[in-house]
Amino acid sequence: MFVLGIDPGLTRCGYACLEAGAPGRPARARAIGVIRTDPGDGLPARLGELQQELADLIAETRPAVVAVERVFFQVNVRTAMAVGQASGLAMAEAHRAGAEVVEYTPTQVKQAVAGDGRADKDQVARMVQALLGLAVAPRPADAADAAALALCHLAHAPIRRQVAVGRG
Amino acid sequence: MFVLGIDPGLTRCGYACLEAGAPGRPARARAIGVIRTDPGDGLPARLGELQQELADLIAETRPAVVAVERVFFQVNVRTAMAVGQASGLAMAEAHRAGAEVVEYTPTQVKQAVAGDGRADKDQVARMVQALLGLAVAPRPADAADAAALALCHLAHAPIRRQVAVGRG
Repeated sequence: MFVLGIDPGLTRCGYACLEAGAPGRPARARAIGVIRTDPGDGLPARLGELQQELADLIAETRPAVVAVERVFFQVNVRTAMAVGQASGLAMAEAHRAGAEVVEYTPTQVKQAVAGDGRADKDQVARMVQALLGLAVAPRPADAADAAALALCHLAHAPIRRQVAVGRG
Repeated sequence: MFVLGIDPGLTRCGYACLEAGAPGRPARARAIGVIRTDPGDGLPARLGELQQELADLIAETRPAVVAVERVFFQVNVRTAMAVGQASGLAMAEAHRAGAEVVEYTPTQVKQAVAGDGRADKDQVARMVQALLGLAVAPRPADAADAAALALCHLAHAPIRRQVAVGRG
């Protein structure tokens, strides 16, 4: 099963496609990177380009689940706007492609990956490197954050399945 | 020339397709309404549905220009998030369809339609009714706001053309 993590953003949108390992085995990274759009282009063109890149990425990786960061607006208003717009595109494209879409808060992701909801970006990147057995930590931070999102889903997935079975 | 105004939202997304009149003649309304998604559905499903409805609307009305409200985050965080996501979808779909995409602030829209940047929703709806020669004001307010956006663009368009000619 492939899980695609997406850390939404307009200037840099992180993504990481992971394959769940057999029980007790680590997940494997199939693709980790960032989609960039040019801040010199107009907003509609950038959103259109990001939408196309996300559609291509989802078509290529065919994830069963797309995990997106649940965004809050508390920092910079301009950045928050772009993150909201990018997250909307990511969720709509994933839904259109038939993937299950799940959201996790930054605190859930840090807790799942680093065991500490207040872990900093370097700690998250180092834990992603260790958990996926990578030679180096993913760069930039957006790519590492996307991998952490996918790892967070893989950590939660067994619990989610148990809940579903229990409900069934 | 058709101008499609979009007042982005997830529960209610207003739209209004107007046809520019001959010089000195009023614009005509071709379609005014709202796209609704069910708050009982999950966010990804609602975003996917809105994306599809927007794509259908743009394909049917074939606007040369799509005017979208420039959104700011100052009110309710949850509402603001949904508005941001909806506006991203609207701009990306319009860009994909080859339309010119323009943004206007609420103040610009109120100033253009009601002559007062602090006009309330009722004033805007009444001015939309008068300017388009409608028997009744568009309801709900999201539909009237979308029509006001398109009227705002038609009011600014001659100036934009002059600027373009002057630059050319």
